[in-house]
Amino acid sequence: MSDMWSVVKTAPGKGNLAIERRPVPIPGPRDILVRVQAAAVCGTDVHIEEWNDRAEKRVPAGVIIGHEFAGDVVQVGSEVGNIRVGDIVSAETHIVCHGCDLCRNNHDHVCYNTRTIGVHRDGCFAEYIAFPAENAFVCDQRYSVDVLSMMEPFGAAVHGAMEFPVAGKSVAVVGCGPIGVMAVAVVKKLGARMVVAIEPNALRADMARHMGADAVVNPLEVDPVTTVKSLTPGGHGVDVVLEYSGNIPGVKAALGYIKPEGKIAAAGLPSRPIDFDFSEFVYRGLSLKGIAGRLMYKTWEDLAGLLDAGVDIAPVITHVMPMADYAEGLRLMRAGECGKVILKPEWS
Amino acid sequence: MSDMWSVVKTAPGKGNLAIERRPVPIPGPRDILVRVQAAAVCGTDVHIEEWNDRAEKRVPAGVIIGHEFAGDVVQVGSEVGNIRVGDIVSAETHIVCHGCDLCRNNHDHVCYNTRTIGVHRDGCFAEYIAFPAENAFVCDQRYSVDVLSMMEPFGAAVHGAMEFPVAGKSVAVVGCGPIGVMAVAVVKKLGARMVVAIEPNALRADMARHMGADAVVNPLEVDPVTTVKSLTPGGHGVDVVLEYSGNIPGVKAALGYIKPEGKIAAAGLPSRPIDFDFSEFVYRGLSLKGIAGRLMYKTWEDLAGLLDAGVDIAPVITHVMPMADYAEGLRLMRAGECGKVILKPEWS
Amino acid sequence: MSDMWSVVKTAPGKGNLAIERRPVPIPGPRDILVRVQAAAVCGTDVHIEEWNDRAEKRVPAGVIIGHEFAGDVVQVGSEVGNIRVGDIVSAETHIVCHGCDLCRNNHDHVCYNTRTIGVHRDGCFAEYIAFPAENAFVCDQRYSVDVLSMMEPFGAAVHGAMEFPVAGKSVAVVGCGPIGVMAVAVVKKLGARMVVAIEPNALRADMARHMGADAVVNPLEVDPVTTVKSLTPGGHGVDVVLEYSGNIPGVKAALGYIKPEGKIAAAGLPSRPIDFDFSEFVYRGLSLKGIAGRLMYKTWEDLAGLLDAGVDIAPVITHVMPMADYAEGLRLMRAGECGKVILKPEWS
Amino acid sequence: MSDMWSVVKTAPGKGNLAIERRPVPIPGPRDILVRVQAAAVCGTDVHIEEWNDRAEKRVPAGVIIGHEFAGDVVQVGSEVGNIRVGDIVSAETHIVCHGCDLCRNNHDHVCYNTRTIGVHRDGCFAEYIAFPAENAFVCDQRYSVDVLSMMEPFGAAVHGAMEFPVAGKSVAVVGCGPIGVMAVAVVKKLGARMVVAIEPNALRADMARHMGADAVVNPLEVDPVTTVKSLTPGGHGVDVVLEYSGNIPGVKAALGYIKPEGKIAAAGLPSRPIDFDFSEFVYRGLSLKGIAGRLMYKTWEDLAGLLDAGVDIAPVITHVMPMADYAEGLRLMRAGECGKVILKPEWS
Repeated sequence: MSDMWSVVKTAPGKGNLAIERRPVPIPGPRDILVRVQAAAVCGTDVHIEEWNDRAEKRVPAGVIIGHEFAGDVVQVGSEVGNIRVGDIVSAETHIVCHGCDLCRNNHDHVCYNTRTIGVHRDGCFAEYIAFPAENAFVCDQRYSVDVLSMMEPFGAAVHGAMEFPVAGKSVAVVGCGPIGVMAVAVVKKLGARMVVAIEPNALRADMARHMGADAVVNPLEVDPVTTVKSLTPGGHGVDVVLEYSGNIPGVKAALGYIKPEGKIAAAGLPSRPIDFDFSEFVYRGLSLKGIAGRLMYKTWEDLAGLLDAGVDIAPVITHVMPMADYAEGLRLMRAGECGKVILKPEWS
Repeated sequence: MSDMWSVVKTAPGKGNLAIERRPVPIPGPRDILVRVQAAAVCGTDVHIEEWNDRAEKRVPAGVIIGHEFAGDVVQVGSEVGNIRVGDIVSAETHIVCHGCDLCRNNHDHVCYNTRTIGVHRDGCFAEYIAFPAENAFVCDQRYSVDVLSMMEPFGAAVHGAMEFPVAGKSVAVVGCGPIGVMAVAVVKKLGARMVVAIEPNALRADMARHMGADAVVNPLEVDPVTTVKSLTPGGHGVDVVLEYSGNIPGVKAALGYIKPEGKIAAAGLPSRPIDFDFSEFVYRGLSLKGIAGRLMYKTWEDLAGLLDAGVDIAPVITHVMPMADYAEGLRLMRAGECGKVILKPEWS
Repeated sequence: MSDMWSVVKTAPGKGNLAIERRPVPIPGPRDILVRVQAAAVCGTDVHIEEWNDRAEKRVPAGVIIGHEFAGDVVQVGSEVGNIRVGDIVSAETHIVCHGCDLCRNNHDHVCYNTRTIGVHRDGCFAEYIAFPAENAFVCDQRYSVDVLSMMEPFGAAVHGAMEFPVAGKSVAVVGCGPIGVMAVAVVKKLGARMVVAIEPNALRADMARHMGADAVVNPLEVDPVTTVKSLTPGGHGVDVVLEYSGNIPGVKAALGYIKPEGKIAAAGLPSRPIDFDFSEFVYRGLSLKGIAGRLMYKTWEDLAGLLDAGVDIAPVITHVMPMADYAEGLRLMRAGECGKVILKPEWS
Repeated sequence: MSDMWSVVKTAPGKGNLAIERRPVPIPGPRDILVRVQAAAVCGTDVHIEEWNDRAEKRVPAGVIIGHEFAGDVVQVGSEVGNIRVGDIVSAETHIVCHGCDLCRNNHDHVCYNTRTIGVHRDGCFAEYIAFPAENAFVCDQRYSVDVLSMMEPFGAAVHGAMEFPVAGKSVAVVGCGPIGVMAVAVVKKLGARMVVAIEPNALRADMARHMGADAVVNPLEVDPVTTVKSLTPGGHGVDVVLEYSGNIPGVKAALGYIKPEGKIAAAGLPSRPIDFDFSEFVYRGLSLKGIAGRLMYKTWEDLAGLLDAGVDIAPVITHVMPMADYAEGLRLMRAGECGKVILKPEWS
């Protein structure tokens, strides 16, 4: 166990990804070394390939990309107490400082000093990955490693879906990419009165229905405001919006079909500012909450509980392929022709 | 429409219930008159028959008993705007003052000046009932009147089950009378990780299983503390306890199998003080919340939402009989030989 | 007591205010009749004079304007139980339906069917006003009627200031008109770590200092983002922003000096949409809550408690004048040359 | 710097405390070494001297006692990033595992694997103490080390006082030992409408008045239920009780003078079970929350904010003496003849 295959951002700029041999990382005293059994492709990986502003600011040349994964522990550092060789783990990707006022106020997930796996430091599109034991999530082995490789995006879905009460409420989920459809399944499990998904892509609309959406609205075909309202009890609109699209017309429509005192949990990242009717927002008593990452580690505890409660995210997986074919996985994500793409550690 | 059949507490003391002819009540300008289509028997009705302390303090001789019901509106007062003849309604039983500091702080459900339908004033074991329109809950007619007659106790179940977060959590429901088993169904719908019911009565244990309990523990056969803990993830105990039994050993056992920082919502009413290990409660950071009635009217909105979300309380009904046989209904409740007993307006 | 003086919006359009004789209103069975002892001028009164869009949609010709007041009860309707002749009262201006899903969910303050005193129906710039008893707030007579005439805007300040926890936190208050400076006093009373006010108007900046602001920043003279951050512990920025300005650069600056996971309670109403960096908002985990009116009636209970706790809003009053001089009061408000203007019932 | 003076529990059983020479501890890579400048005597120190059940279970022979302190950092471990030599620090006394489900759910303060400074491991009644850097609270040097030595009990006061909203509310504080009187000061700073303290000891009653109590009730002289109620607005009783006495009649009286839907935060530890009227508790919709330790580290952030907001706890200090006189400090605490006793590092 000395060298391994990996997918590396070889240089700044668009493209510049390659499969390379790298040394197997050596875990520090508080780290664990994990053999990657499944990894999932994220939109962030696409952004690193495309080299958007955020990637440029954060990604050093030579980094191994990928941050969604599950695998078995093959080595534990000398100070690690609660994880054993053979455990199946997934990981929180934010490595935080524990010392700043945010960390000390249970806001670790937005720590000023966050370093992100697969972004600032080597990630999981590789045979092995080492990272702090405190970031590990020890998994129940009843679930498949393919499902477990999606815990991190599932956490983004759960963080948003649990931000505001949805039990007995009418909920709209805007944007049914992998995280959005997982959120559909979660709010149904949490007892939503009805869930309407807003999604123009036919593949994703089907996934949303399969995951439990009571209705799917195509905003390119019908007016989303009047249509969503017509689907809700009394025609009053929804109580809660979960925004995972980052689509500007999608965000603005949401302000039209949400009820007074309605709650919006927003995780999607629009590429431009939104011209936002602030007065109407105020006048109607609305709430907007930005959903950044996963609560550390409350959201992970929720993940364990919701998997056991029966939330099934396996249907989100549309493709499973060798990690050597990572470029095809990135292409599918870019094209929106998939749910979640799982990469398996096959390199030949 | 001048006279009607009714069940009356004819005089103070044990027993003293009789079927009597009474004038059909005349609704005031802000009242509605409802033709009772189904009524449900409550433990409080049994207490009025048995004449316990609380009944003695509150129930005037001559009152028509019964407070759980559904029926159709046959007349509306001159100032009633949002209810129409023909609507199917159920009712919140607490008529409150709106003027005290409790009412003004969203605590109407514990208003100092509460007058209760079927306790302080005429109730629903009758052909007709008149009450303030604001206390009416206009029902979705997709649900049967038998189910709708149970909205008030369903509200007690939902108020308790929604007091603390249960999604992804381990939950114990102590006492599986009609309200307890409805609570089992609710916490399952809200995404509990697992629900264990504590109930010695075999009929009620079966109902709890049918309503979704993952396990039922008979505290007369096994030690509830070790058994409940062994059923929970990691053996750590439950996060949340819903106490509907009023059983003193049941309450004390709950303090043994609940986790540190666990939450107890208590609706059951023990007949004697409990010798309570306050220090252990403090030291473990526990929470205890008394659940009185239903939040007015947030809980009722939740009821509508949860029915639509698919909570099915129909299995709680074990008996349907003519209202003329009310005495048999009370006997079944007293004996614990039933779930919910529904009385239909048949009087011959 | 048959006719009275009043200030009337005589016709649609700009201006069109006049002093007129009107019949003293006759209270209905659930109303009270109040002799106005002090009224306060609000920005909404200015908008009715100027006839902005919102006024045009809501204000019928012939209405008596004014909605902030205190006075003594001279008559109570036959069904009114908890208010007596001689009580000093102020009033919640929103008259709501109690029947819609918003009212039934403790969201009366944004009821679909709200009718507002002094906007949709006759107000308080008059000798007498009649309104529903449930909207009355019975005052402690230790406080002056001038102070008590400001309970409604004080409620807007308190609703915003209590939306998010401020105890031990760094808080910015943006916009120090009368409501903003009252909010400064409230957050100081609630134990804020430090309060920085953002206000270019010198008179209002002085008021903010007098009401307890630890610092006042003039955003026309210094960069508010760097200046506010430099004033906070560690230079990290504020935890909470209370936005009462409706000023677009003011709102955008707030997004710059607030911490990750910071909370914004917004009551100011910008006249145009804001180009809002939604991605940054999401990425930093921020919260935004629109503050509409006052919680009914939780905020009013809070007002009573906070007055007794020692919040002193009297310094907000900069002018006291006869109601006959209402036009001068409106002019002062329009010009921003005042704190609060109190009108006394002198008409000659 | 090799040996130091210290106060040691030399053997199990009552008494068995002695001043001994010990090696100066050597900090590990993630620890800091602190020179103790002030320490405070706690009831737990008295219990260790008296050897109650809890002490017997937790305290090993040979341990240095004491856990409330402040001092300057003289050495930092190799992996410590955010603390520097010369910083003044106090400390959270609970050293937790970070790996259990409680720690992962923001419930570190009740971690199953807690080890407590001055109880399970060497404490601060010594010249030096070493402990994990993560447990350090870096202090603002504007405050005196005597005040800063009380951060840990101040945290117990703040944790309780911030559990339920007190702004604008009527609050009773039961038991005015050092933590109780600090809680009085905190709830006043948080904007309580009025605070009534319940305390029979004259010295402590005086301290409570000095710290801002609006009234002090001696439950040995008057009936606390009727007296407290008579002091509250409308005679309705208090909204919130902070229980720091552990006195059984005191707890039971609180259930009598608290309003329906009232909230009780309890930190006092009665020595026996309480016969508790559970039914009345349920029927009135009350809440009870056990307050264990301090939230890690939210409470500590609150402490910093509240000190800056002006909470002054210095008046709690009634005695300052050499650490060599620790036995006199323990005697004063046992006798209740003091507020807080501060020990200074003088040993001759």
